[in-house]
Amino acid sequence: MAPQLAEFDHTTFTTTSQLKKSAHLTNGFSHHEDIRDENPEQDLSDDEFATISIRNLVHDLCMQNGGGHGGSALGMAAIGVALWKYEMRYNPCDPEWFDRDRFVLSNGHASMFLYTMNHLVGYNVWTMEQLKGYGAAKLNGYTTISHAHPEIEVPGVEVTTGPLGQGIANSVGLAIASKNLAATFNKPGFDVVRSRIYCTTGDGCLMEGVALEAIALAGHLQLDNLVLLYDNNQVTCDGPLEWVNSEDINTKMRACGWEVLDVLDGTNDVQTIVSALSYAKRLVGKPVFINIRTVIGAGTAAAGTAKAHHGVFDKESVAKSKALTGLDPEKSHVVPQRALDFFRERRAAGTALAKTWSDLLARYAERFPELHESLDARRRGICGDFDQVLSGIDSQQLRGLATRESNGVILEKLWKSCPALCGGGADLANSNKITYAETDVFHPLTGYKGRYLRHGIREHAMASIANGLAAYSPGTFLPITATFLIFYIYAAPGVRMGALSGLQVIHIATHDSFGEGQNGPTHQPVEIDSLYRAMPSLQYLRPCDAEELVGCWQIALSARHQPSMLSLGRDPVGQVPNTSRDKVKLGAYMVAEEADADVTLASCGTNLHYVVSAAELLKKRHGIKARLVSAPSLDLFQLQDEHYRAAIFPLDGKPVISVEEYVATTWARYVTASIGMTSYGYSASNESNYQRFGLDAKGIEGKVVAYLAKLQGQNARTAGWHQL
Amino acid sequence: MAPQLAEFDHTTFTTTSQLKKSAHLTNGFSHHEDIRDENPEQDLSDDEFATISIRNLVHDLCMQNGGGHGGSALGMAAIGVALWKYEMRYNPCDPEWFDRDRFVLSNGHASMFLYTMNHLVGYNVWTMEQLKGYGAAKLNGYTTISHAHPEIEVPGVEVTTGPLGQGIANSVGLAIASKNLAATFNKPGFDVVRSRIYCTTGDGCLMEGVALEAIALAGHLQLDNLVLLYDNNQVTCDGPLEWVNSEDINTKMRACGWEVLDVLDGTNDVQTIVSALSYAKRLVGKPVFINIRTVIGAGTAAAGTAKAHHGVFDKESVAKSKALTGLDPEKSHVVPQRALDFFRERRAAGTALAKTWSDLLARYAERFPELHESLDARRRGICGDFDQVLSGIDSQQLRGLATRESNGVILEKLWKSCPALCGGGADLANSNKITYAETDVFHPLTGYKGRYLRHGIREHAMASIANGLAAYSPGTFLPITATFLIFYIYAAPGVRMGALSGLQVIHIATHDSFGEGQNGPTHQPVEIDSLYRAMPSLQYLRPCDAEELVGCWQIALSARHQPSMLSLGRDPVGQVPNTSRDKVKLGAYMVAEEADADVTLASCGTNLHYVVSAAELLKKRHGIKARLVSAPSLDLFQLQDEHYRAAIFPLDGKPVISVEEYVATTWARYVTASIGMTSYGYSASNESNYQRFGLDAKGIEGKVVAYLAKLQGQNARTAGWHQL
Repeated sequence: MAPQLAEFDHTTFTTTSQLKKSAHLTNGFSHHEDIRDENPEQDLSDDEFATISIRNLVHDLCMQNGGGHGGSALGMAAIGVALWKYEMRYNPCDPEWFDRDRFVLSNGHASMFLYTMNHLVGYNVWTMEQLKGYGAAKLNGYTTISHAHPEIEVPGVEVTTGPLGQGIANSVGLAIASKNLAATFNKPGFDVVRSRIYCTTGDGCLMEGVALEAIALAGHLQLDNLVLLYDNNQVTCDGPLEWVNSEDINTKMRACGWEVLDVLDGTNDVQTIVSALSYAKRLVGKPVFINIRTVIGAGTAAAGTAKAHHGVFDKESVAKSKALTGLDPEKSHVVPQRALDFFRERRAAGTALAKTWSDLLARYAERFPELHESLDARRRGICGDFDQVLSGIDSQQLRGLATRESNGVILEKLWKSCPALCGGGADLANSNKITYAETDVFHPLTGYKGRYLRHGIREHAMASIANGLAAYSPGTFLPITATFLIFYIYAAPGVRMGALSGLQVIHIATHDSFGEGQNGPTHQPVEIDSLYRAMPSLQYLRPCDAEELVGCWQIALSARHQPSMLSLGRDPVGQVPNTSRDKVKLGAYMVAEEADADVTLASCGTNLHYVVSAAELLKKRHGIKARLVSAPSLDLFQLQDEHYRAAIFPLDGKPVISVEEYVATTWARYVTASIGMTSYGYSASNESNYQRFGLDAKGIEGKVVAYLAKLQGQNARTAGWHQL
Repeated sequence: MAPQLAEFDHTTFTTTSQLKKSAHLTNGFSHHEDIRDENPEQDLSDDEFATISIRNLVHDLCMQNGGGHGGSALGMAAIGVALWKYEMRYNPCDPEWFDRDRFVLSNGHASMFLYTMNHLVGYNVWTMEQLKGYGAAKLNGYTTISHAHPEIEVPGVEVTTGPLGQGIANSVGLAIASKNLAATFNKPGFDVVRSRIYCTTGDGCLMEGVALEAIALAGHLQLDNLVLLYDNNQVTCDGPLEWVNSEDINTKMRACGWEVLDVLDGTNDVQTIVSALSYAKRLVGKPVFINIRTVIGAGTAAAGTAKAHHGVFDKESVAKSKALTGLDPEKSHVVPQRALDFFRERRAAGTALAKTWSDLLARYAERFPELHESLDARRRGICGDFDQVLSGIDSQQLRGLATRESNGVILEKLWKSCPALCGGGADLANSNKITYAETDVFHPLTGYKGRYLRHGIREHAMASIANGLAAYSPGTFLPITATFLIFYIYAAPGVRMGALSGLQVIHIATHDSFGEGQNGPTHQPVEIDSLYRAMPSLQYLRPCDAEELVGCWQIALSARHQPSMLSLGRDPVGQVPNTSRDKVKLGAYMVAEEADADVTLASCGTNLHYVVSAAELLKKRHGIKARLVSAPSLDLFQLQDEHYRAAIFPLDGKPVISVEEYVATTWARYVTASIGMTSYGYSASNESNYQRFGLDAKGIEGKVVAYLAKLQGQNARTAGWHQL
């Protein structure tokens, strides 16, 4: 074994003699006094007792099924006491209490930290039995809420986390939500929205690009209701942090517009963390980064090393730790009454908080009835009268516009009618055709009343911020994001987490083919749809015209627990007959029938227009009769019954051909052959690209004719799928 | 129109009276003297004349086809003079000269800047005719090298850029490559590798997470051969930068370990930029960030505003600018002889540089014959004796290991034999089973001789850095990356750019299913394969055992112009009969034939093992005889002829069923039914997940039986594809 590149100091603060007292926040330094050495539990202060009680429960969760990510949870115990006992406003008796502070565990692998806290403060669902489920979900019928990573469906979990960095961006979204609601609804003496956002992060999250994007934006937006607590344990999964990072994180955060506070012994020193949090609450105009030095695996033999990152701990240390609070080391899953008393009073406190708030809200309703009604509607997830807006749109008036242009028109109308709509693009607003008033920008200068978010060129953060907005309280916000379809590959991890979390976000993906304005293959999606069409729960919708786009919006707005992606074209295109907003929900439907047709042609988006022309050529020049299918959503089509599916894509052996400017794999479920891309695109004019890749009317015509000739009347189904 | 949130100062420096002289780099400040007002071209210094000549050519490119991204190119003209005339070591007569400095245009939309410079200094291929092709590639037969974004296939372009931020990470890869080669091959008096890396960036790149990740790593690695020139024009596509960013970028860069220099009038002040570059060259132990204040669209009516970002410029300004260098405003695409003389001497200079280097190399060959031979082999892309290493691996000895474990063993052998192999993981080395010696880490403390890269938790930067390494000189480096398959969704934009660019990178994606260690759905890829299987040029390889894995490595190492992704399992699994390293290249092949089979079952990876067991159950309990197909690569299978494809997946109407723990769309091309995922995974033990989702032997058995019963002997092809 070669020597380590540098030595790593893994000082531990594990015994009572090492517990630090009387620490105060003084210009980023803590002053410590070492005291006492004997008579463990009587000597311990309430904070110390609580801290060690958290650790002991974490030990049990680690040991019960042979592992998990316990190291950070041990190191963060004092942070847990500071947040759940002293700082956060929440109600264990009602996890969904509207004005609660939101906690995000961006270092989601430390889930047992959150679960332990939820149990200790007395969330109803977070019983000891549930904690025992951690790492035990082995059988088909067995369910537990103690998932390996926090999952949003579970009470007491605000967002699903695990993939690093995204929790920080979610927190920025939550902070924007709270700021915006407060700006919109609070009145002097009536602060009906006060919720603050607390997010813990490890070293890992702070290396991820998505977090760095979100941090820069949070500083820019001066989100002073956001506190990021850095569990600075200087260790990653592989080894000491200094192996991979040597930046000055405090200076970096300050440069991004954050206030930075230091806590030097965050492993034990509860009251310094409390002081820092208290100071943070008084700061105006900056989000706050609290750099809390902790020891991973505190109190165990692996303390301060990568070995503590995951896995079990040594029994001796666990026994010692239990003895500190007077527990029998042989027993597990026992919380001393002293700790329970210490934490469980949060139930009564939470109930009182919620009561005070309800009373305030009642007075608010009397004094500001309209505002109250409006807030109430938001909370109930009423999304304006979008049905009426959409049914009022005459798609004939949008004829000849590119779908991105039609979308701009529709969005503008919806924006006015639906106050929950919020969000915006990652630069490119002009290209995405998203118009907004300067006064409607979310920004300190507009007093945070604006709903349009300028994300900067930060696609991944944009998607994850949207998830945070959507997660604030179901239906209260309905976020949109926007960029070119190709750049949704930057945002993909966020889009995925939104889909997994069942969050309604509408992604507006323009420039959705090689017809994107000749930027070239770097900007031309040919395979991005394959990801999004395969992504469970995400609805990828590719309308061919304004009429279908109206249907897509109806679907996207109605799906309260799913994100949707609107895939839109850059250029104006020709007419497709018989498109129907109402039929979009079928996923695919006939736009042109033909008696005794020779072939079925299916397409969507821009390419469908070329298919319409190709069908004319086929008939005129070759006497080939084609049925035409518009398929704006393969996801929705797959949900239809077999009978309907066979009516659209017949199984009678006649050829069924898909045509789309993408790699064709997703179509193969339904068709006998596909005309599509097998390579990247080309930097050339939009029209010429259709010609170049054989996807214009002529190209399609030629390929269909050749395919039919090859089949020679053979049953196309038994001939197997063909790439044309 | 609402008022702008803040005023934006768009001072322009456009007339001769505003051209600044005698500027010197002094503690980050430039001192200017305003001089002269009349007699344009005689009054201009050579630098000024050159700067304006660049702008005039850019004007022509913008105007010739009605647009493009000209604004940054105009603002960067002085940077162009500083780099191409004074700073960079390159040879226009031999774009591939090995020891050239590498230039990366991370703000790739400003491609005409690079093209203009390449033309002016006299690259053979960069004729005026080629420049005229910019924006003109409208017809099918028409080709040009003046693509909208720089493409790596073109001489004088080091990497393909456009999607923002990635060029910075590519540059970090290039800098690592040069550092590592220098450390390995240079000897006192024999600096055979001296290449430095210059990268320009706009505001956009610096907001992107991938850039921020790469910047942190470059500072950590103390890459003092890397210079990042910030075209600080304070404008994005949508508007002034301050709309979306208010960070202190200089402080942020310093916090990341970079040296920061300021140039206040980068629009015109060539010699201050030269001084900064010169100073940068003398610095040791830090990459250098030169913050160069420029004016977008300098010299036009749109100067300093978002209007200048793309599109045409006003004719009056263009005419004025041409007049400055004595050009007839009515004529276009003319470069004054004075400018040509000024720039074209780089041809002779470059030839001389290359000659000096060749002479040095010849002396080096005499003095250090073994090193020279080794360097020569690297340059010729000889990848060790990998064939021999691989053929020496007895997969029987790796029986019972998880494929990630087998991969660790294989990689260790290859690493020793193939000096071009380099790279590493994004944390998780223990999980990815990538072993390395501490002394083999690329780091200042190892004198940069190590080949193992610790990327930190920076997946996107990792992929883009790998692209930079691969792009340094074809075959000289063969980078690997590693993380969980799920986290390749973070890296996807980089993986895509590598595939588009034809760069050989091997991505090691472990934990490739819901059998990933019960982390839960956040960590369980069910749709990521759909992206990578659809991504042109990327080879997604999913072996079921060590034998197939050997074949996968053969394919990945042999594909010199394609990236590959090895999709590997976490857990040990059972035996699959008749697997063959040699047959992997067919993409899919028979591992068990049955005369008069009732059904064909196809799978790959971990799930294939369950299929083998399912086949036994089907036979024993139901008398159903199954043929078994192992399909490690659908990409490669699609390349086989129809005859072979039909031999594996018969078209006789008998059922052909795919089984895989992914969303099944990609299989539908070949099979009549698929057993797969239609939802996200679940946080539970690996084995129980196979049971939970009906993908274990019993689950497969039940679904196959039900499907056959439903078919009742009907031709499975004509029954259409079924999701089971």
